[in-house]
Amino acid sequence: MSEWRKDPIVDRWVIISTERGKRPNDYKEIWGQKNTLECPLCEGKEKLTPPEIIAYREPASQKDTPGWWVRVVPNKFPAVNIEGEPSLRQMGIYQVMNGVGAHELIIETTHHEPSLDAQTVKQVEEVIWIWRDRSMDLRKDSRMKYIQIFKNTGPVAGASLEHTHSQLIATPLVPVEVSQELEGVKAYHARHGTCVYCDMIRQEAAEKERVIIDSEHFFCFSPYASRFPFETWILPKEHQHDFGQIHEELVRDLAGVFRAILRKLAVLIKNMPYNVVLHTSPVNTQEEIHYHWHLEIMPRLTIMAGFELGTGYFINPTSPEIAAQAMREVIEFYSLQEKPVKEVYQYV
Amino acid sequence: MSEWRKDPIVDRWVIISTERGKRPNDYKEIWGQKNTLECPLCEGKEKLTPPEIIAYREPASQKDTPGWWVRVVPNKFPAVNIEGEPSLRQMGIYQVMNGVGAHELIIETTHHEPSLDAQTVKQVEEVIWIWRDRSMDLRKDSRMKYIQIFKNTGPVAGASLEHTHSQLIATPLVPVEVSQELEGVKAYHARHGTCVYCDMIRQEAAEKERVIIDSEHFFCFSPYASRFPFETWILPKEHQHDFGQIHEELVRDLAGVFRAILRKLAVLIKNMPYNVVLHTSPVNTQEEIHYHWHLEIMPRLTIMAGFELGTGYFINPTSPEIAAQAMREVIEFYSLQEKPVKEVYQYV
Repeated sequence: MSEWRKDPIVDRWVIISTERGKRPNDYKEIWGQKNTLECPLCEGKEKLTPPEIIAYREPASQKDTPGWWVRVVPNKFPAVNIEGEPSLRQMGIYQVMNGVGAHELIIETTHHEPSLDAQTVKQVEEVIWIWRDRSMDLRKDSRMKYIQIFKNTGPVAGASLEHTHSQLIATPLVPVEVSQELEGVKAYHARHGTCVYCDMIRQEAAEKERVIIDSEHFFCFSPYASRFPFETWILPKEHQHDFGQIHEELVRDLAGVFRAILRKLAVLIKNMPYNVVLHTSPVNTQEEIHYHWHLEIMPRLTIMAGFELGTGYFINPTSPEIAAQAMREVIEFYSLQEKPVKEVYQYV
Repeated sequence: MSEWRKDPIVDRWVIISTERGKRPNDYKEIWGQKNTLECPLCEGKEKLTPPEIIAYREPASQKDTPGWWVRVVPNKFPAVNIEGEPSLRQMGIYQVMNGVGAHELIIETTHHEPSLDAQTVKQVEEVIWIWRDRSMDLRKDSRMKYIQIFKNTGPVAGASLEHTHSQLIATPLVPVEVSQELEGVKAYHARHGTCVYCDMIRQEAAEKERVIIDSEHFFCFSPYASRFPFETWILPKEHQHDFGQIHEELVRDLAGVFRAILRKLAVLIKNMPYNVVLHTSPVNTQEEIHYHWHLEIMPRLTIMAGFELGTGYFINPTSPEIAAQAMREVIEFYSLQEKPVKEVYQYV
């Protein structure tokens, strides 16, 4: 069973996966090893995953068989476990809690394709809908306080499976990064009476130099204090604190701009490793209406090293102004619509 | 010139190195590229670095020529610049400050050797002394509020030069990770009247299972809430808030245990990538006597991915109990003293 352990000095919890319990020899085999096993996420290999939680599939098709186009399964090697109540124990100066939580895998397509940007806009829409479905379902479990949806692409960004997928970890705690953002948002609101994210859109739209895509419902830009080269945020223009509030028109537009950003990154640098993190308000706790949900896309071309670990600050050798310009200048694949990016590479 | 830019929501500053200004094409060349240039840190190549700030060298030898055994130079590609006053400007909702700071490179040996653990204890002592020298000198500059000494070993851990070296970045701000630690330390002291780090040593010494080395002056252990597999902290047993308080007896002992820990890691996993971060109290600001300086050694066998970036929490598949046991079981190279670890590998 996993454990949540808290650092006795700062608000930092660590999930110790004692069952996975990697020993030194497990790491000796990691380096340079290529995964040669069958891909368990491909169509026809449904029996290789734990039984599906939900799938969008043909009405006549059976659970855990082909016929689906997006599929959610429990993570086979979960960092957290769905059973049990989160009970906090004091161990001398330390605090520990049983490793409660949900850890799910969202399989974004049936075929073995490493990147989401090669999918159609319609397929990306389906992925966003299933993120929302899982978010709405998991919040019915009152133990869960936050639903972290994220995506790791490329080994450098932490992906251990190549087949395009995203993940979800629901936690019995509001994570420190989220609670610090909430504090910042509330402090700003108390001072100015407005939403800091809405004000950010206003300022960026006026200054223009960091804007990448300004669509009907979403605003995509390189944040002023970008931690990573080509970091990109996608914000809904309408103030919504909770990703669960997304509706049909927004899903359609988000699918288009999200895919466009991923395509731009893919064209800019081949096999660009990146993380996507969905930021949204917590659940089953005080409602945080001043929050503003959004997507943060973080390419991993730089390394978080000693300075970043020691200070919590970042060094970014590519200014967001240069990044946004390069992103804008990439041919607008958004308009090419359904053409997979692989075919498009040759044009660049 | 560089800029310090602040995120408008959280206490996160980013150094944007606008001069280094990497453009997309610079990254295209990064992947798989092996550095084939002459190593500028080797003895005899002194002219390839900026002029030295300090070196421990033969009395008769000249600055920027051979004859040294440890040498400190300004970073040739500094993230921050030594000139100017840190002046904060408001840019709409954002804050920006000129990129003031010091960025130095500590060359830990004359010959092209990738790891500090292959050095003699005496040589490691010299490195610690020069860290202290730079710390004492830089704090005379009242603009500097924190002196972050760190070490990146291996490309995965962010090292761009192979020749063993450490770095120092002095900042005009107390970094958020440090201020959060200070808050935690003070809150603990207010509640218990004791130092949380001293209490940690007491509890770990009693529980034993996470102890790695317990020397005369230093306590080395796997922290209870280890973020990384084989993470190791080295704490002075005597309560000292400021690394500058270290004295001769402590330097000698620290050199021995620090090298022993690095050797253990090197023997456990070949070419183990790791970061070392020196945690100490800020300078030129309120004295923080309840702080307790220490070294944190963080092997980089896992990847900080979407979950870590989104939540600020960590997933660690190796419990500190397993890690400490493995570290203890590695033959005690500490006692082998001056034998380079390369010769020792064959015994394992």
